[in-house]
Amino acid sequence: MADEPDAHLVERRVGGRTLLEGGFLEVRRDDVLLPDGSTATREYIRHPGAVAVIPLLDDGRIVLVRQFRYPIGRTIVEFPAGKLDAGEAPLACARRELAEETGYRAREWAFACEIHNAAAYSSESIWLYFARGLVAGEQRLDVGEFLDVLRLSEAELDALAAGDGLPDVKTRIGLHWLQRWHAGAWALQWQPDPDPPSTL
Amino acid sequence: MADEPDAHLVERRVGGRTLLEGGFLEVRRDDVLLPDGSTATREYIRHPGAVAVIPLLDDGRIVLVRQFRYPIGRTIVEFPAGKLDAGEAPLACARRELAEETGYRAREWAFACEIHNAAAYSSESIWLYFARGLVAGEQRLDVGEFLDVLRLSEAELDALAAGDGLPDVKTRIGLHWLQRWHAGAWALQWQPDPDPPSTL
Repeated sequence: MADEPDAHLVERRVGGRTLLEGGFLEVRRDDVLLPDGSTATREYIRHPGAVAVIPLLDDGRIVLVRQFRYPIGRTIVEFPAGKLDAGEAPLACARRELAEETGYRAREWAFACEIHNAAAYSSESIWLYFARGLVAGEQRLDVGEFLDVLRLSEAELDALAAGDGLPDVKTRIGLHWLQRWHAGAWALQWQPDPDPPSTL
Repeated sequence: MADEPDAHLVERRVGGRTLLEGGFLEVRRDDVLLPDGSTATREYIRHPGAVAVIPLLDDGRIVLVRQFRYPIGRTIVEFPAGKLDAGEAPLACARRELAEETGYRAREWAFACEIHNAAAYSSESIWLYFARGLVAGEQRLDVGEFLDVLRLSEAELDALAAGDGLPDVKTRIGLHWLQRWHAGAWALQWQPDPDPPSTL
């Protein structure tokens, strides 16, 4: 692949092993061939991927959750989100997590973007979706999951982001998407929910 | 702390141990007391923290780097960034990483925000800084580090972010900050570099 444009940057796997199979985290250490022909090791988390949902209420407010995140020792405001189950498609995961964490189901969905939140040491992708036409229902939290549901205006979210009130990356990026979409700069393709909620 | 407002969300450490001390990654498993009095375990990476720099050229373009990220198997565009050395302050790290990765030194700095990029399983903070008054110099890459330096306009970055060309979270968040600052919505406090470069 000598004519590959990124040959001066790309690292190739030549071996490796699993360092840790925790109940939750899987850590790999791979041996890689560097662009200059030398070798190095790369340690990283193998992650199944995750989704985050930007849920838009008909009155213009946005649904968020507030939860304690143990690794940072802090309660933070976030968009509803969660990891993909084995074999689960991102949109199916988005529908499930929105309903479980907030009780809301949506009539329409739009994919925004795929982001990598820790590309130096995790394979994680987060797929961001917008949801609208929301119909309230009952929260069904996982065992050991505790969170508050919030409804904030775009201006309230923007004020949080201007200070230190919005440290979560997927939530800042969702707000950016929302503002660029409202400005007419970035486009969303809406699609109907495959099993839309009734409003009766 | 029964009168703590977040008592219904907060998890408290009651024990724990180190699961892995890799050459690069440190993984902990802590036992925690949940808000309802039950217990659970939390696995996470202990991370020293990192910085990212949004370097503004006098002609309005922005300096970025392009590098291969092994865990995601992809070459991506990012703001210059790196991990804190032991005992290193974030601004000192920002000055060092900007110079090492791009060769540029800056006359002025402004802190933007602290973000958490993987709060579910990493203690990592990334501190974002703006840099301006840039003076070019020589790149000094770490052993095993390979990257291209790019100079893009804000409009070029925005076009990347509208599609799938900007998956890196700190870079999307830096672009958001730049746009909100240019719009006059979010404020930056500039401070002189403690050892500014000469332009002679």
